Amino acid sequence: MAMEPTLKYIPLGGVAEIGKNMSAIEYGDQIMVIDCGLMFPDEDMLGVDIVIPDVTYLVENADKVQGIVFTHGHEDHIGALPYVLRQINLPIWGTRLTMGMVRAKLEEHGLVETTEMNIVEPGDRIRLGQFDIEFIRVSHSIPDGVGLAIHLPIGAIVHTGDFKFDQTPADGKFVDFARFAQLGQEGVLLMMSDCTNVEKPGHTPSERVVANTFEEIFAGARGKIFIATFASNINRIQQVIDVAVRFGRKVAIAGRSMARNTEIAQELGYLKVPPDTWIRLEEVKDYFPVEIVVLTTGSQGEPLSALTRMAMDEFPKVKVEPGDTVVISATPIPGNEDLVMRTVNHLFKRGAEVIYDAITPVHVSGHANRDELKLMLNLTHPKYVVPVHGEYRHVVKYAELAEEVLIPRENIFVMEVGDVLEIGPEGASITGKVASGDVLVDGIGVGDVGDVVLRDRRHLAQDGIFVIVLSIDKATGEIVAGPDVVSRGFVFMEEAEELIEEAKETVLNTVSEIEVDASTEWSAVKDDIRKAVAKLLYARTHRRPIVIPVLMEI
Amino acid sequence: MAMEPTLKYIPLGGVAEIGKNMSAIEYGDQIMVIDCGLMFPDEDMLGVDIVIPDVTYLVENADKVQGIVFTHGHEDHIGALPYVLRQINLPIWGTRLTMGMVRAKLEEHGLVETTEMNIVEPGDRIRLGQFDIEFIRVSHSIPDGVGLAIHLPIGAIVHTGDFKFDQTPADGKFVDFARFAQLGQEGVLLMMSDCTNVEKPGHTPSERVVANTFEEIFAGARGKIFIATFASNINRIQQVIDVAVRFGRKVAIAGRSMARNTEIAQELGYLKVPPDTWIRLEEVKDYFPVEIVVLTTGSQGEPLSALTRMAMDEFPKVKVEPGDTVVISATPIPGNEDLVMRTVNHLFKRGAEVIYDAITPVHVSGHANRDELKLMLNLTHPKYVVPVHGEYRHVVKYAELAEEVLIPRENIFVMEVGDVLEIGPEGASITGKVASGDVLVDGIGVGDVGDVVLRDRRHLAQDGIFVIVLSIDKATGEIVAGPDVVSRGFVFMEEAEELIEEAKETVLNTVSEIEVDASTEWSAVKDDIRKAVAKLLYARTHRRPIVIPVLMEI
Repeated sequence: MAMEPTLKYIPLGGVAEIGKNMSAIEYGDQIMVIDCGLMFPDEDMLGVDIVIPDVTYLVENADKVQGIVFTHGHEDHIGALPYVLRQINLPIWGTRLTMGMVRAKLEEHGLVETTEMNIVEPGDRIRLGQFDIEFIRVSHSIPDGVGLAIHLPIGAIVHTGDFKFDQTPADGKFVDFARFAQLGQEGVLLMMSDCTNVEKPGHTPSERVVANTFEEIFAGARGKIFIATFASNINRIQQVIDVAVRFGRKVAIAGRSMARNTEIAQELGYLKVPPDTWIRLEEVKDYFPVEIVVLTTGSQGEPLSALTRMAMDEFPKVKVEPGDTVVISATPIPGNEDLVMRTVNHLFKRGAEVIYDAITPVHVSGHANRDELKLMLNLTHPKYVVPVHGEYRHVVKYAELAEEVLIPRENIFVMEVGDVLEIGPEGASITGKVASGDVLVDGIGVGDVGDVVLRDRRHLAQDGIFVIVLSIDKATGEIVAGPDVVSRGFVFMEEAEELIEEAKETVLNTVSEIEVDASTEWSAVKDDIRKAVAKLLYARTHRRPIVIPVLMEI
Repeated sequence: MAMEPTLKYIPLGGVAEIGKNMSAIEYGDQIMVIDCGLMFPDEDMLGVDIVIPDVTYLVENADKVQGIVFTHGHEDHIGALPYVLRQINLPIWGTRLTMGMVRAKLEEHGLVETTEMNIVEPGDRIRLGQFDIEFIRVSHSIPDGVGLAIHLPIGAIVHTGDFKFDQTPADGKFVDFARFAQLGQEGVLLMMSDCTNVEKPGHTPSERVVANTFEEIFAGARGKIFIATFASNINRIQQVIDVAVRFGRKVAIAGRSMARNTEIAQELGYLKVPPDTWIRLEEVKDYFPVEIVVLTTGSQGEPLSALTRMAMDEFPKVKVEPGDTVVISATPIPGNEDLVMRTVNHLFKRGAEVIYDAITPVHVSGHANRDELKLMLNLTHPKYVVPVHGEYRHVVKYAELAEEVLIPRENIFVMEVGDVLEIGPEGASITGKVASGDVLVDGIGVGDVGDVVLRDRRHLAQDGIFVIVLSIDKATGEIVAGPDVVSRGFVFMEEAEELIEEAKETVLNTVSEIEVDASTEWSAVKDDIRKAVAKLLYARTHRRPIVIPVLMEI
């Protein structure tokens, strides 16, 4: 009799939040992939545009991989798809809105023709190789989010996706509580659970509470109303439109991603907009201020976003003016607080009333808080648990929470990217590691910006660069031309003539000490010049620019 | 009869928080200065170490300036003093602990001998020219903080300093409520009020609540306890020491500023430490883990701080190990959240239990919340009000708050740096602007990093630099040596040979198209080379490094 294959769960990159962007389930000789998202770079990844998962493991096992299943349409779950499809072409599955957003992305990258796209409804059950996969509706900050149940001979796996238990969802579509409970009754071998909000007590408020706040704001507003939120939060946008219609205001859109997402959502029926509600930004000036709502991107204070440009008075199509109200209907993502508050300061300078999270509840999270996380565990009571979608501290805190609902500690797995959790009849353990991690994308370069380039960028950012160029007669050691100095980001050159002269003298002195003959090692000469100049510059400024001597031998 | 002089209030730099680092009061031909602090640079001030106020106005009116009065010893109120004293030597006044910290700073800069330092007690009243100045005790996150009352023929001015109303101060030293009330009875012409926490409802909790949390943490800890807090929060440090002594733990210190501040505070009697409590970091290993507390810097996740290095396992003297407890007794300053959470993640990876603000209340603010701000207004009921020590949004929100307690809107002044508020018998208004703002300090350069250098640093950080060097015979146009390429922060050079070869070819092609004669404009040639190479690099990478051609004419 053939041995029963083991089950493997492998979180792949990005490394910041475990298993968020991508993970793999392997059973026997088949692999299925969950999600294919990107991260935005950390502050110290200078110049990097996006971060995508390293899919070496999938490419090396291309014959095993059956396809990719999406939980929802956020960038951190779908955004890396065009990059990954270029490395390994796979069929993909997702709900209608998710696939609408995926399709738009593939269109941009010219990948629609070559990709097999499949649309499912929450509640559907599909077969992907031997993976028998159910899509189970959950609530999240984008419509059409699902968790997964994956049935295999060894047992059932539940993956929650990003979720919350919203008891009064804005779109009237409820979490499929019953199915999760039923799965719990039938027996769940392994659950991967969202743990993003494990630091937050109780329950996340319902999306509906935001509508009440909007209602109050609209009732009190005397001028235009600007509302900045995530472009993918279609339910939030629907609530804005509903209130706008009730108060007789037209709605204009600022920001490319907001325009694109609302278009997709409206086309697919996820956004219901009465006729004569939309107007173009250019038409705003034809209305009285009390007749206008502007839906805009920029809720994270992104420097080039519509809202930030309005705050700086650099957005010609529509102005934020005294008497206007600006609502920032989002919480700053950690690291963005400063940018958001800078935007808020500037909006106040424009004379607007600004309503932001620190003052008024104009945002709710899309993730389950502690009591919801416990409820999910108690509904499904899985044998083994892996917290996913969190940073390391969240994962550790979730492990503690799972213990509180009596999951044995040894059945909870705190994993890192590439770790292989293997489950067989004998039990579960982390048995190995596969190649994965972050791949940096800068411009059209994928993976060509690595540690060396980043280290140089950090150094350049800190103290700039100082290049010394001279032409030397290699026979005599005589300097034929130069030294010339090129410097950027170090000191303001026009005011540093004296220092530059000193640097040139230092170069001349260093070179004059060399006895030139056939054995002269020019690389050593360059090194001497570099050290002498760096020493001078540090003494004069206490800065350490990158110093590069260029010797042209003639 | 001579006309009564008007009173002027002028907030000077830094610009981020109005009137926080420095402000001036002018009456007739005399000026007094309040505080002399620094700011830490914004994220986009790359490479800048600190930001100090532009004191041009004081230097230009040096004969009028009587001296500087400090409200408390935080860096943002005293830190720019050495730089300012080098521009204008002034006598200084402050309470004992404040002056202890000022003295340490002046010692570092070799300025003790040349500076007239005066120590006052809360409750004291001094004469500075015609300014009759009272020091009034307030509570804050550093001991010995004071507000000021300044009596002039035209009326009394109250400056709150940074304050909160702590009803159970950890050091038993209460806000001088009575004196503020009495001043209100006598009549206050103008009040400058701290508005930092105007976004926060109710009252700031007392410093004492932290002691209760510490008590619980110590009772439950099985290993070493690390506590990270602001090095100047002497009352917090005292509470740590008290609990440590009660639980029979020794206390070691990590981090230079923590060592320096505790030494000053202990010397001056602000920190009471029983004998045999301190041990050196090197001695930690001689004790059982349950006998140890380490007080450390790094509560803001600063990359080079002791705590961050411990988190990364790069701090040889003492290790964070499984079973240890780390308490981050501080709230991230906006912009630092990401750094702090990164440190927390790494501490969890070391196996420590980490207690931070998101989970447990281990920190309270040093600033008054809304109800306390209203109480201060109602105690002093000033005629004119200027919110200070906040960003623009705080200042605007405070103006709204002041209206709630019936200060007429036209008597509340939202000011920006350099604005001159002038008050005479006829009323008050902003009548002008003086030169002020931020001066950037990088290394030992004060003010030599300006917009051009910062713009270059941002550009370098984003896409790096690409320098092309060639020697040209200026008579013939022949290339004698080169082109050579030097690049940093653009692509990893060793893997970009092809691109570099292409760039060199582009240079050769560009030069070969030139007809050289006496009229050849080499600067135009350089420009052609720059454009051609930049175009190539963008086409190949979608990046825009700084491209610099260097032509050596031989």
